[in-house]
Amino acid sequence: MTRRHDYQGDRPNNRLLCALRRQPTDCTPIWLMRQAGRYLPEYRKVRARAGSFMRLCQTPEWACEVTLQPLQRFPLDAAIIFSDILTVPDAMGLELSVEDGVGPRFAKPLQSCAAIKSLAVPDIATELRYVMDAIRLVRCELNGRVPLIGFSGSPWTLAAYMVEGGGMNNFRRAKSLLHTEPQSAHVLLTKLASAVGDYLSAQVEAGAQVLMIFDTWGGLLSDGEYAEFSLKYMRDIIAAVKKNAPDTPIILFTKGGGNWLEAIAKSGCDAIGLDWTVGLDFARTRVGAQVALQGNLDPALLHASCETIESEVQRLLNQFGAAPGHVFNLGHGITPDVDPDRVAHLVDAVHRLSTPN
Amino acid sequence: MTRRHDYQGDRPNNRLLCALRRQPTDCTPIWLMRQAGRYLPEYRKVRARAGSFMRLCQTPEWACEVTLQPLQRFPLDAAIIFSDILTVPDAMGLELSVEDGVGPRFAKPLQSCAAIKSLAVPDIATELRYVMDAIRLVRCELNGRVPLIGFSGSPWTLAAYMVEGGGMNNFRRAKSLLHTEPQSAHVLLTKLASAVGDYLSAQVEAGAQVLMIFDTWGGLLSDGEYAEFSLKYMRDIIAAVKKNAPDTPIILFTKGGGNWLEAIAKSGCDAIGLDWTVGLDFARTRVGAQVALQGNLDPALLHASCETIESEVQRLLNQFGAAPGHVFNLGHGITPDVDPDRVAHLVDAVHRLSTPN
Repeated sequence: MTRRHDYQGDRPNNRLLCALRRQPTDCTPIWLMRQAGRYLPEYRKVRARAGSFMRLCQTPEWACEVTLQPLQRFPLDAAIIFSDILTVPDAMGLELSVEDGVGPRFAKPLQSCAAIKSLAVPDIATELRYVMDAIRLVRCELNGRVPLIGFSGSPWTLAAYMVEGGGMNNFRRAKSLLHTEPQSAHVLLTKLASAVGDYLSAQVEAGAQVLMIFDTWGGLLSDGEYAEFSLKYMRDIIAAVKKNAPDTPIILFTKGGGNWLEAIAKSGCDAIGLDWTVGLDFARTRVGAQVALQGNLDPALLHASCETIESEVQRLLNQFGAAPGHVFNLGHGITPDVDPDRVAHLVDAVHRLSTPN
Repeated sequence: MTRRHDYQGDRPNNRLLCALRRQPTDCTPIWLMRQAGRYLPEYRKVRARAGSFMRLCQTPEWACEVTLQPLQRFPLDAAIIFSDILTVPDAMGLELSVEDGVGPRFAKPLQSCAAIKSLAVPDIATELRYVMDAIRLVRCELNGRVPLIGFSGSPWTLAAYMVEGGGMNNFRRAKSLLHTEPQSAHVLLTKLASAVGDYLSAQVEAGAQVLMIFDTWGGLLSDGEYAEFSLKYMRDIIAAVKKNAPDTPIILFTKGGGNWLEAIAKSGCDAIGLDWTVGLDFARTRVGAQVALQGNLDPALLHASCETIESEVQRLLNQFGAAPGHVFNLGHGITPDVDPDRVAHLVDAVHRLSTPN
């Protein structure tokens, strides 16, 4: 395991926690969705050693190692535990695999309403223990330098993959379930919300200091469906987690959710993750200071020149304005073909160009 | 050629034109994106006879026949000329093919900035004459019963396919062009805006009574890029077309454009097409009565039961409310696996459940 603790040279960095609480910071904090990933050669080495993506996730020492890799390169303001949004359905017996360039697949997708009914709620403490072990290891290694983020996919996003078996076809089967068997859909989403709530609570207990719910496919739903089949269950999860951990900030990210910011802001979350199509100024006008905002550089910009990246960073910082409550991030996960030097430039630009608030 | 003119039984139907002008109608007009298409067995027959999709487009008698097919089945309130959003780049020499299940592809995509510079603006009158001929035929056959819609892809959407060669990879190469060679991107978009403007004007001259611009991939752009690389050029096109045809309503549809409705409403268009993620009530609050709204049933709903379709129709009608200016449509094109009986039910439900305004 790598032992370069460059990120431990400074005093504890609480920028992320402050920004999520809409408290002033010396500059805008930044972390990147999928910051531990294939664009880093050191990640690819560990990934090759592990053999499979899931074996990497499920081996706490390796998960810890890759979680810390981006922090050894860049002065990021947070770590996010290396894992997958779909660990909960894997623990339910659907057998997740994640192949490079193909994406996630379940060997045993849900094929019927009967399968939904008989789906077992997993015993988080044993079946997902590897995640909690990894969180404990990372917290120990980080030693308080930056906060650690835990996460899960949202119930709707999990359900979409579980019914479809993978990420193809715009999730037609999953959407069809909502329209033809709404009762079964609600049974499934209720089970998932309960499991995800327990899972996120267990992550906090193990040491996660911030939580994020990834509703990657919420944007496929219609206006009415989003409220009924996705947001409702995220609200339930937030309420359940906050009961035991009222001070742990929760970030809710619905990709393609720009139309529903007002409703998302009322979900009980502390911050809304924004994809790159949403103007930060427009978002702030709509949700005010109720919640922090996280985002939202287009990941494709990381292929542009350093000058272009820098001017886009400046534009986004200006768009958000001087108030507290901005966490800089991409609008979606970083792609494998990005040059790490561009990431270094981005992180530096955000810290350098943002002003104390 | 089919000669059943069932749709000619009634008096002229001006519902669409009235709604686009925010004038009262006896009920809410409805037409469907891709209403002439693979879900109809009679379409598949003509398509098979034609051999290729492009040969079908380019043979005015066949294009006319399939344009009229959905009107022989359903009391739709408009016809839309059977064609493709990518005819302009095809006329520029990129050689379009459209395969079922694969989507559009260009045999000669734009590979360099030099190729962009030397790209010829097509002679619309000769190279796209087949579209105008089809429009003239359809107008003659329709004999004023329902209005005919002409259309094109937006400059950004055309450029995205032209640079990428097809619809894969989230158009990473096309987006990269915007970031690394913005000047070349503007050269390309300027050429396309000019050609599309001429093309749409020619369609009006041939008989199109309403125009629609499909910005299918505008939603991939970031907030700032959308204004600079997509909306600007659609605005230019609208201004150019309106110079000669001030009374021809123009519908602008940006899929995933819900975040930019205020700006779109100011583009000079007469109506905004909405995908299914945007609440009609929220959209109306934001744009007022400046423009009509078109949409936005989730096409996936057409796999649901008639009861579910009907209750969703009712929800959308209620959401829009009693004022004039609603054109019912799907939020995206109808998919090939839809049962035509469901479409019949949808069209009937919209007419039956909507009230005069």
